[in-house]
This record gives sequence, structure tokens and C-alpha cells, in this order.
Amino acid sequence: MTRVDGRKPDELRQVTILRGWQEHAEGSALISAGKTRVLCAASVTTGVPRWRKGSGLGWVTAEYSMLPRATNTRNDRESVRGRIGGRTHEISRLIGRSLRACIDLAALGENTIAIDCDVLLADGGTRTAAITGAYVALVDATRWLGRPAAITTSIAAVSVGVVRGEPMLDLAYTEDSTADTDMNVVCTGADGFVEVQGTAEGAPFDRAMLDRLLDLAMFGCAQLTEIQAEALRGPAPAGPARPEGTR
Amino acid sequence: MTRVDGRKPDELRQVTILRGWQEHAEGSALISAGKTRVLCAASVTTGVPRWRKGSGLGWVTAEYSMLPRATNTRNDRESVRGRIGGRTHEISRLIGRSLRACIDLAALGENTIAIDCDVLLADGGTRTAAITGAYVALVDATRWLGRPAAITTSIAAVSVGVVRGEPMLDLAYTEDSTADTDMNVVCTGADGFVEVQGTAEGAPFDRAMLDRLLDLAMFGCAQLTEIQAEALRGPAPAGPARPEGTR
Amino acid sequence: MTRVDGRKPDELRQVTILRGWQEHAEGSALISAGKTRVLCAASVTTGVPRWRKGSGLGWVTAEYSMLPRATNTRNDRESVRGRIGGRTHEISRLIGRSLRACIDLAALGENTIAIDCDVLLADGGTRTAAITGAYVALVDATRWLGRPAAITTSIAAVSVGVVRGEPMLDLAYTEDSTADTDMNVVCTGADGFVEVQGTAEGAPFDRAMLDRLLDLAMFGCAQLTEIQAEALRGPAPAGPARPEGTR
Amino acid sequence: MTRVDGRKPDELRQVTILRGWQEHAEGSALISAGKTRVLCAASVTTGVPRWRKGSGLGWVTAEYSMLPRATNTRNDRESVRGRIGGRTHEISRLIGRSLRACIDLAALGENTIAIDCDVLLADGGTRTAAITGAYVALVDATRWLGRPAAITTSIAAVSVGVVRGEPMLDLAYTEDSTADTDMNVVCTGADGFVEVQGTAEGAPFDRAMLDRLLDLAMFGCAQLTEIQAEALRGPAPAGPARPEGTR
Amino acid sequence: MTRVDGRKPDELRQVTILRGWQEHAEGSALISAGKTRVLCAASVTTGVPRWRKGSGLGWVTAEYSMLPRATNTRNDRESVRGRIGGRTHEISRLIGRSLRACIDLAALGENTIAIDCDVLLADGGTRTAAITGAYVALVDATRWLGRPAAITTSIAAVSVGVVRGEPMLDLAYTEDSTADTDMNVVCTGADGFVEVQGTAEGAPFDRAMLDRLLDLAMFGCAQLTEIQAEALRGPAPAGPARPEGTR
Amino acid sequence: MTRVDGRKPDELRQVTILRGWQEHAEGSALISAGKTRVLCAASVTTGVPRWRKGSGLGWVTAEYSMLPRATNTRNDRESVRGRIGGRTHEISRLIGRSLRACIDLAALGENTIAIDCDVLLADGGTRTAAITGAYVALVDATRWLGRPAAITTSIAAVSVGVVRGEPMLDLAYTEDSTADTDMNVVCTGADGFVEVQGTAEGAPFDRAMLDRLLDLAMFGCAQLTEIQAEALRGPAPAGPARPEGTR
Repeated sequence: MTRVDGRKPDELRQVTILRGWQEHAEGSALISAGKTRVLCAASVTTGVPRWRKGSGLGWVTAEYSMLPRATNTRNDRESVRGRIGGRTHEISRLIGRSLRACIDLAALGENTIAIDCDVLLADGGTRTAAITGAYVALVDATRWLGRPAAITTSIAAVSVGVVRGEPMLDLAYTEDSTADTDMNVVCTGADGFVEVQGTAEGAPFDRAMLDRLLDLAMFGCAQLTEIQAEALRGPAPAGPARPEGTR
Repeated sequence: MTRVDGRKPDELRQVTILRGWQEHAEGSALISAGKTRVLCAASVTTGVPRWRKGSGLGWVTAEYSMLPRATNTRNDRESVRGRIGGRTHEISRLIGRSLRACIDLAALGENTIAIDCDVLLADGGTRTAAITGAYVALVDATRWLGRPAAITTSIAAVSVGVVRGEPMLDLAYTEDSTADTDMNVVCTGADGFVEVQGTAEGAPFDRAMLDRLLDLAMFGCAQLTEIQAEALRGPAPAGPARPEGTR
Repeated sequence: MTRVDGRKPDELRQVTILRGWQEHAEGSALISAGKTRVLCAASVTTGVPRWRKGSGLGWVTAEYSMLPRATNTRNDRESVRGRIGGRTHEISRLIGRSLRACIDLAALGENTIAIDCDVLLADGGTRTAAITGAYVALVDATRWLGRPAAITTSIAAVSVGVVRGEPMLDLAYTEDSTADTDMNVVCTGADGFVEVQGTAEGAPFDRAMLDRLLDLAMFGCAQLTEIQAEALRGPAPAGPARPEGTR
Repeated sequence: MTRVDGRKPDELRQVTILRGWQEHAEGSALISAGKTRVLCAASVTTGVPRWRKGSGLGWVTAEYSMLPRATNTRNDRESVRGRIGGRTHEISRLIGRSLRACIDLAALGENTIAIDCDVLLADGGTRTAAITGAYVALVDATRWLGRPAAITTSIAAVSVGVVRGEPMLDLAYTEDSTADTDMNVVCTGADGFVEVQGTAEGAPFDRAMLDRLLDLAMFGCAQLTEIQAEALRGPAPAGPARPEGTR
Repeated sequence: MTRVDGRKPDELRQVTILRGWQEHAEGSALISAGKTRVLCAASVTTGVPRWRKGSGLGWVTAEYSMLPRATNTRNDRESVRGRIGGRTHEISRLIGRSLRACIDLAALGENTIAIDCDVLLADGGTRTAAITGAYVALVDATRWLGRPAAITTSIAAVSVGVVRGEPMLDLAYTEDSTADTDMNVVCTGADGFVEVQGTAEGAPFDRAMLDRLLDLAMFGCAQLTEIQAEALRGPAPAGPARPEGTR
Repeated sequence: MTRVDGRKPDELRQVTILRGWQEHAEGSALISAGKTRVLCAASVTTGVPRWRKGSGLGWVTAEYSMLPRATNTRNDRESVRGRIGGRTHEISRLIGRSLRACIDLAALGENTIAIDCDVLLADGGTRTAAITGAYVALVDATRWLGRPAAITTSIAAVSVGVVRGEPMLDLAYTEDSTADTDMNVVCTGADGFVEVQGTAEGAPFDRAMLDRLLDLAMFGCAQLTEIQAEALRGPAPAGPARPEGTR
């Protein structure tokens, strides 16, 4: 079966990760997966939220958003509507949870890293691209902070789904919108699961199909892990000057 | 290993479902699962949202909320804070998606059913209890509407998790808050999966543990399906008078 | 003249008060008055709002809300609309003022009691039922706190109105919505007035009618005071464990 | 007993009413009662809210607000805070209800009159001054509309209270803030009651005191009714040009 | 060419400034420019916003608003809409910036002056009238505070524009709404520019026209400076009692 | 005098404009001016806002926003704060007004073009870069629509200011934050002024300095006009498929 863009069912879209694109941030990455493009920035601040003070532990949080015209038709800004929508909330929480799974918060010290994932162009898989790119920005932020050991594993994410009865990897928007089942999977570099979120949009899926989807997702995440490692080779981009006392 | 309330690892809490508790609603159910208590109401209105008009299809939507003192310490009302939190948004969307999986929207006709799930008392598993109870309210609403055939299967949900290394069914609050992995599973009465949402709160989980959790969840949902069927035996409670033209 | 539910003009609906229904709260009461059902919870926290600190005085506050399907047709949630409506504000303030009239704030010490009144089912008189039930929850909260002497009198409330020219006690919804005059009266157990709020919805009312309505209200409140006393006989339900230092 | 400003217990403050102060409005009045000053504007629009269309009835609504520095210390604007406070809501609703009591909505036709009461200077009794002034603006608006017969009676309001044990008429701010009981009474020109809102701020009040307060309020309203009549003598100020089709 | 109200192109409307109109404020002025009427109040508080503490510098801020019926047709309140509109924001910021240009913040000490400009009646030029009036209120507030030397110059503002091809001073509403170019200019009493905001509403304007508009604006501001000086002759109105420690 | 980045006082930063960067939009441009980078998208929809229907005229509107980490320190998202700030409102209005100056709304027909300007990286001059880039996106949108004649002139914008006493063109952030005067100027390609917004941040500026700043701004805009023309040479990027009936 041929896919809309000629890929095989178990084939990822082309993924590129550019580090340091947002020059002011302590870590940043512009990730492209096909026509999905997400700008990820990691901002370091000394100190932690009030409820965490004195614990010796750091904190990592995330926010996701989409530019109004990232998609086929323009969406109103959430700032103009005056409220964050449910989908945005849900994805922001997912990204934050996923990234906290690769961080040793004690090794981070009482510092906060805020991850911003802004979708510049959307063609499906924006939340998983955001997680995959944010990991790279996060690594650079810990390096900038002089605490690279706070990273305990790597984190990558990919979508899988059932399209016209067949399991497929890394769905593009037109595939995603017609899929019977849509699943987002977040894995560590050591084949552990961090998040499994599967939804039957059409017919329910059975246990056998679930197994095939999980296989595909693990296969995809392993490749993304390599692409991340490649991107992270070489020194971190310059980044802002290091404030006194943050190390 | 003994659990906090003496249950076995694969044992559900005691579940009761009372139909018709909110007398004005077209369908309603008060579900208790241990010390978790959720009031579910299904409200029927003729017509559908604007984007759906003329499609011949109905619509089912859901909202979840918690009374301020459902929990151990009082939470501020979201109405007072002026915004819905991310968790509430996420759960409302989950309930809506889950229930739409058991409805033939064409057979429903251009009618809307709004499900309200209000947690009166919370001791873990509120979102899964809400789904399980809401299904019963939804069935009564379709009966009231004279369209019982719109229900194509049954829907039940349960939480599972890994507590101190061991997989367990139907977590109470103290278990949930210390679990390494927390998973909510929504199944049809025919063993199909509608939603699988697993999160590693602590260490990542591997494929073998994921399989054990899915086994447990299917086992629990099968029992909940029977309890629902039992509750639905007998005529629907009276409910409000049927407005002209809704059939 | 017969009333919609067969009562005499000066007859209350059947009232029941169940203590301890919301197990986590320091005090709680589920009050039913006919088909009106309100869940009242009293939450104790050590300390007072900032503007009150160091005064040696406690604080009592209240919030009122209605479940979306408590009424005949579903109402949008105020949390979803993003703002509290005028009616809700007004009733919350009324409940708070009324309950503060039975409390010796110095005897309460620098503790805060937050009263939540959530209407589960509505058939008129929800604000007066809320006050009558909240008083019971408040008493249990002061007992839990070991400060029963902070209660200086009892508080009960009832509605009266002029329906088709005749004064009536404890209006049901269909009566209330056609009444010419609607009055809510809050009394102490010692026949003192705490609040008198009368509104001519149709024709203005004269001094003689006002006198008859006040007579009826005092008659009703006296009965409610007895029902409260009866409910409060016997020990308080268990409630949550007492935190250190709250006594 | 002497009052803070030398008045007798049953003496009103000096009241003046200037018509036409807000030149663009169909009716307007600047009312001063001592150092309380409220600008009342009545705005006529053709048509009624959607829920009222085709009924043949008009509608009257009201909004109350206070300038930030109307009081001794500056209050934040509600527009800046992003929400209307409970007190504002409550008073706006009171003014609207009170004025609807003097209007024959059928005689008004399907027109809407929006009353705006903005407190420019506050020294107690702002809500009652607002009602008393708004009545004058409303009369001019009905005259402008060519429908003076829509006014069926006059409406005036005054506060009364128990200060240091003694009933007093028309409380100034320093009296109001120390009163045991505070009552706002709205009367028609024919001695009918439209609203009676009494609150025990300190000790509860008994039936005898309630009677004395009602006497005082009726005495005060009768005088205000005369001041209104005097102000309304003579032609209405010019006002805006009459749009076609509103008569 | 004759103007709508008979003025010459370079003629100001009649301007009057009444000090002390809002008795509770430390400084206040009611300014009328033709049928535009703005109430300006300056509120002094000891201390500065957090980000400014310990700097030894004071702060001046401003808010602008319009009564709903200040204009020809009623506008919804921004408090009711729940958000401040862009125009209001823009004008508030302009007023604040303009007034800070005449203040020596070190000489003010760590005190904050909040300026409120509320438009009671609008006939064009409300923002420039607000600035011109607010300056007078600000001077009285610094006098009240015992720090008159904090005022380093005077500030006045006026609108100019191109109406039917001709440059004109101090536009009334009907002129403003048909102008090709609309410019607001804020000057010091020493002919310095503080703000120049010109907008081509219709055709772009060329450099020569810009020069003519600037000439007109300087001519108008010089006259307003004299009117302000005249108003400020004589002692400040009484104002509130001076709190201890503010000098 | 040397500038922070070695430029001469009258020298622009390097400006590049990439068309078609946001592939889904009918027109888009990524503009860089030194380290300021703004993504501009023009979205076409058939039809106009309600207040404009049936006029035969189109509409152009604009929104400006900044990514949280576009600047040196992270700013909270306005969507999270729940309200648009004053600065954002002000700039959005400026961009919209400026672009409407180059459009013949009758030639546009009843179509709406919404311009989104999102600042990805900020180093001063973001609002002027947004206008200059948005013009390019707007031209492509009118071409896509088959209505290139709706563009009547070109629009470019630049900042000028007085830094350490000397007038300078195109201020970088560090220059802008220390400037005595800051002025944004929007010109047409035919040397007409569309907007002149000058603000004395420190000392007021005199007429002579104003003249020098206007000279500089005209000089800069002329160069930007050429860069725009160069970027617009060649065919428009593909863009989305043209919906039926929009031409």
C-alpha cells in the first residue's frame, strides 16, 4: 500500500534538527519532520517554584502552542480568545511529563528549565516532533548550566496509527485525520515506555493491533534517538552569557 | 502483598450504580467505586452544534468537574479562578471521546447529548468511574429519546498501575499517588480498546509490564461491564416529560 | 387554596438533613427540602486571610453553585463561561453573611471555615436550604476544631411569597416563578432577623402583606431550627484526622 | 443624639437632581445626596434582547459602577481586574429590578432602555441614590421615545439603619460602616414596597426594630418622591435627535 | 472655510478646568473642551511597585476609561466584556508616558501617583483633554505630598488634523471622524515635544503638511499651558487629610 | 561615533526577506533585520466581518505576537496570562492601520486578509520589521486572490531615535533601551507618511531634532522599499489551492 507521500508503512518522514536557532535561549532546536516544523526553546532560570523551594530538586515545565497560520486554515490565537484550549493544555502537560522522565531533578539543582514548543508549520505529529526536538534543547540547556549529568537517558516520540486497516508509522496530517486509531508513544533511548496514548477514533482496536502499533513505535523511536545523538555531537552553540552563581 | 484496603492486586473496589438520581435529567447515574462517588447526568437537546447542522448526525459531549471538597483538602473552584485547568480539560475530552465510541451518531439523529460528570467524593479513579457511570446515563438518555439502537456497544473504564513494583487493578488515591506507572484503559463490552493512556510517573515501564497491565485492565473492565448490564436491567426511571418532536 | 404539591399555605416541604455525607470535609450535610437537594461542606484551615492576620479573629466564607443539570434544562457551567454570574455572587455573599451571624469570630480563633453549598437538585428555595444545611455543617466543623463555643445561636432560612394573592411558606419552583412577591428570610433560633430580602416581582406589596409574610417566615424558621437541632443530636461523624496545632 | 453631619435621626441629606447632564443620552440625571454623587444615563435602543423578540414587550436593564477614586482610597477598576465583583453585580441587579417595577413593558413596546449608574463621588447610600436618580433619567427616556404612559408609578429608594442602637434615615458612609443593621428600601410613589433588603451586620434585629426602620424608610421615600416630581417639572432637555421608526 | 461649530481653523474650543471636583482625591480636575468632559483624579500612595523598591524613585501611572454613554451610542463596559480594549490600553499608556515626562521621579521619592481619567462626555479629543487635565491633578497631588519640586515642566496636549484638505486645530468628533490625517501632540511648556502621533486615516500626508500640523499643535499647546497656569493659581483645594509619614 | 554593531548612524541593519516560508498561508514572508526575525503570514478568507457586509469593500486586519523566548529573558505567554497586553494591542493596531493604507478595499472585493506577525527573535525594531515583512506577504495574498490591483502603493517602516544625543537609524535593542527619543515611521513607496510615532523617553526633543529624525526615517524607508521590490520579483510561491468562488 502506498502512502500519500510515497513512504512505506514503517518509514519515518525526513527529520532534521537545527540547534541554536533561537539565539537568546540557553538551548534551542528547530525540528522538521516532513512539513511539520517546531521551534523548541529551553530557558534556564535560577530557583524553583515556591512549592519546591529548599527541596534541593530542580523543575522542568513545558508549554506548547501553534502559530495561527501553521495549519491549512487560520486558527484564532488563544491569547485573543483569552483562554488556553483543552488540546493545548493536554499537549503541554504531555511534553512536560515526558521530558521530566529523562532528568535527574536532584542533579539539576534548584534550577528551573522552561521548554517552549511553538509549531511554525503543521502537517501532523506536532506533539511528538515537539518532544523529540525539546529533548535536544533540554540537553543544551543542561550543558549551558554545567550540569550535563542531569540527563539520565534520551527521550524521543513518534505517532503511529491504523489507516485503512493498516498500521503505519509517523502519520502525516491527511493520514491522521482519517485514521481509525491514533497513538502517540514516548520512549527512552533504552526502549522503556514513558507515555502510551492510544485512541480509537473510529472502530475499537484489538490486542493484536495494539501490539503491532507498539512494535512500529519502538522502531521509529530508535531511529529518532540516533538522529538526536547525531545532532548533539559537537559543542553546544554559544548561547547567552552565563549569569553568575548559576553553576 | 496486601493493599491499603485489604484488596488483592487484581480486585476491583465495590461498585454500585444508582440510576435516576438527578431527577430532571433524561438519564442519570450515581456511581460509587469504594470512596469515589460521581454523579453523571445526560441531557438531551434537540439539534446539534452549528458545524454539524444538516449532517443527519447527532453529537455527544462531556464535561467533568470536582466539587471543591471532594478531596482531602479543599480546591478552589474553577469558576472562581475564571478558567478551566488542564487536568479538567483533559478528562472532559477523554470522557467525550470514550462515549462517542459506543454511539451510532446517525442512529441518534440530529440530537445532542451532553454528559456532566461531577465528582462528589474522590478517592482515586474518578475519570474511569465517570466513564463507567456516564455510559449508564447515556443509555437511559437514548431510551428516553426513543432511540436505544444508537447504542452499539457498552463502554467501561478502569485504572491500573504499578505500585511498589507490582501491577494492580483499580488504584485508590494513596496507591495512585505513589505508583510508578499509572494507566487508564477504556474498553468496549466486546474486549476492544477505546483508549489506552499509560504514564510512567517514576521509572519507565517495559513491554512485559505493559502487557501485564493490559491484562489486568481487560479483566476489570469485563466485570464493570456486567455491573452496568445489571444496573440497566428494568425500565428506565421516569425522567422528564418528552418534548414534542424529539423522537 | 390547594398548592401544587397539596401542601397548606403555611406548610413546609419535608426536610431531611444527613450529616457527614462528604467524608473528607470537617463538617458536611446533605439537606433535602422536597425536591431541592443541596450538599453543604465546611472546610477548616488554620490561619485567616492576610487582611485579618494578627487580629485574633477567625473567618467564615461561603460559595454557592449549582450542578449544570440540577434544573429542568441544562445550564452552562460558570467555569466554562469563565465568570461567576451575578445570581451566584449574590447568593454566595448572602450565605456567608448569614452564617457569620451565628459565629463568635474571637472564639473561633485565627481559623477559617469555608462553606461550599452545591445544589445537586433544584426545585425552588435553594439558597435558603443551603443556609439551613450549611449551619449544620458549620457546627460540626467547630466541634471538629474543638471550638463548639464559637457557635452563639442557630441560623435557619426559608422563603415566603405571595402566590395568586395569598401569602405562602417555602415556595416550590413553579410557585416561585409565578409569585408576585418573593421573600427570603434568615432568622436566628432566638427569633432575631439576620436577613430580610423581599422583592416585588409583580405588583408592589403593602405594609400589611409584608407583616403577614414575616409572620409566616418566622413560623417556618422555628420548625427548621428544631429539625437542625434533631440532626445535630448525637456525636459528629468521624471526619478527617485532626492536624496538629489546629486546636 | 447628634449625627456626624448634624442631622436629626429622621433627616435626609440635601438632595439635588440635575437633568440632561450627559448630553448624548436620551435621559440623564446627576443626583447628589450630601457628598454622594451619581451620574445616571438612560439609553434607548430599538428592539429587545433575542429571548424577548416578538413578545410585544420592552425591556429595562441597569449597570452600576464606581469610579476608582470615588472613595477614600482608590479601588482597582473592574475592567482591569477582568471581572465584575459580587457587590457590583448585586447592585446592578437591584437597580434593574427596582426600575422595572415602575414600567409597563407592553406600553414601552419592543424597545430597550439601558440604565447606567456611575458613582462619581461616594459617601454612603450610592445604590439608593442611583435608583432615585435613575428613575428621573428613565422618565425622560420614555418621554423622548414618545411613550410617557409606560411609566406607571414613581420609584425612590433610601437607606435606613441602626446606629449605636438608634434607627436612622439615609446613612452617610461613616454611619453605614458602624451600623448594626443596614437596610435599603425601594418604594413606589404610592407607598408600595418594591424591595426590602435588611441585613444585621452586628446583632440580629427584632420585629419591633424592623417596624421602626420601615417607618423611617417610607418617610424618606415620600420626600424623595417629591424632589423627583419637582425635578421632572418642565420640558425634558433636548437630547439626541429621534431616530426614525422608534415611536 | 467655516468649521462645524463656527471656529476658525486655528482656534481651540473653549476650555475650562475645575480643580478639586472629586473631593476624596489628593488632586483632581474636571476639564471641559467644548462638549468633551473628562474627570481626572490623582491618587497618592506611599511606596512604589515591587520592581522599583529601594531605587529612591517614585512612579506615575495612568488609566483612561469612558462612561458607557459618554458617546452618541452606548458602548458596552469593558468590565462587563471582561477585557480592556486595545484603544483603551493605548490611550492609558500614552497618558502615563506623557505625564512622566514632567516629573522628577527622584524628587517624588518612593511614592506612587495613579492618574484616573474618566471621560464623562465625549466630542473628540478625549485623550488630549485627559492629558491636559491630568497635569493639573498631578500638580495638586505633588503639592499635597509636599513635593511640588517634583514637577519640572508643564504638559499639555492637543489634536490637529487635515479636514477636507485643510489643517485644523482641536478637532471635534465630526471633524475627527472625517479627517484624512489625525495627529495628537503632547508638548511641554517650554516648546519641547513629548509625543507626536500622526496617522493617515485616508491619503498619506507629505512633509509640508506635517510641518503645518506641527505648527498648529505648538500654537494650541501654548494656549493650553496658559489655561493650566491660570487654573493652578491660588491654593490647592483641601483634599484628604495627609497620612503620617508620606512627606 | 561608532554604534554597538559597527554601523554608521544612518545605516540600516542587513535585511533579508524570504517569501513562502509558511507554506499553508496565501502569502508569507520571513523577514530578518539583523538579529530581529519576524514571520509574517497573510490569510485570505472569503467574506468580511458582519459590520461590513454588503459594502462591496474588503478588510485587512493584523495581529502581532512574540514567542516567549524571542527575547533575552523569557516572557510569559499572553494566552497563559489570559489577556493581551497593552503593548501587543498597540502594535497590532499599528500594523493593521499601516497596511490598510496601501490597499484599495473596493478592489479587494468582499474578502478579508488577516496578517499574523510572530516575532521569532527580537533585537529591537520588531514592529517596523513586522510592517515591512507583512507588506510582502500581503502582496502575495492579493496575487493569490487574483486581485493584485488592490495594492495601490508599497509600505515600509523603520525606527529612528536619539542615542546619546545623536539621531540614528534602525535601532538595535541596546540602542533602543537607552535612547532619549524613539520614533517609528511608516512611509509609502512614494514618500508619503502613513504613521509618525515619536516618544521622548528621556528629555523632550525640539523641532530641529524632529526634522533630522524624519529625514533619517525617509532615507531608511526608501532602501527598504527597494529590498521589498527585489523580494517580490519573480512569481509568488505556490501557496494553497485556490478555493472556488474566491476570485
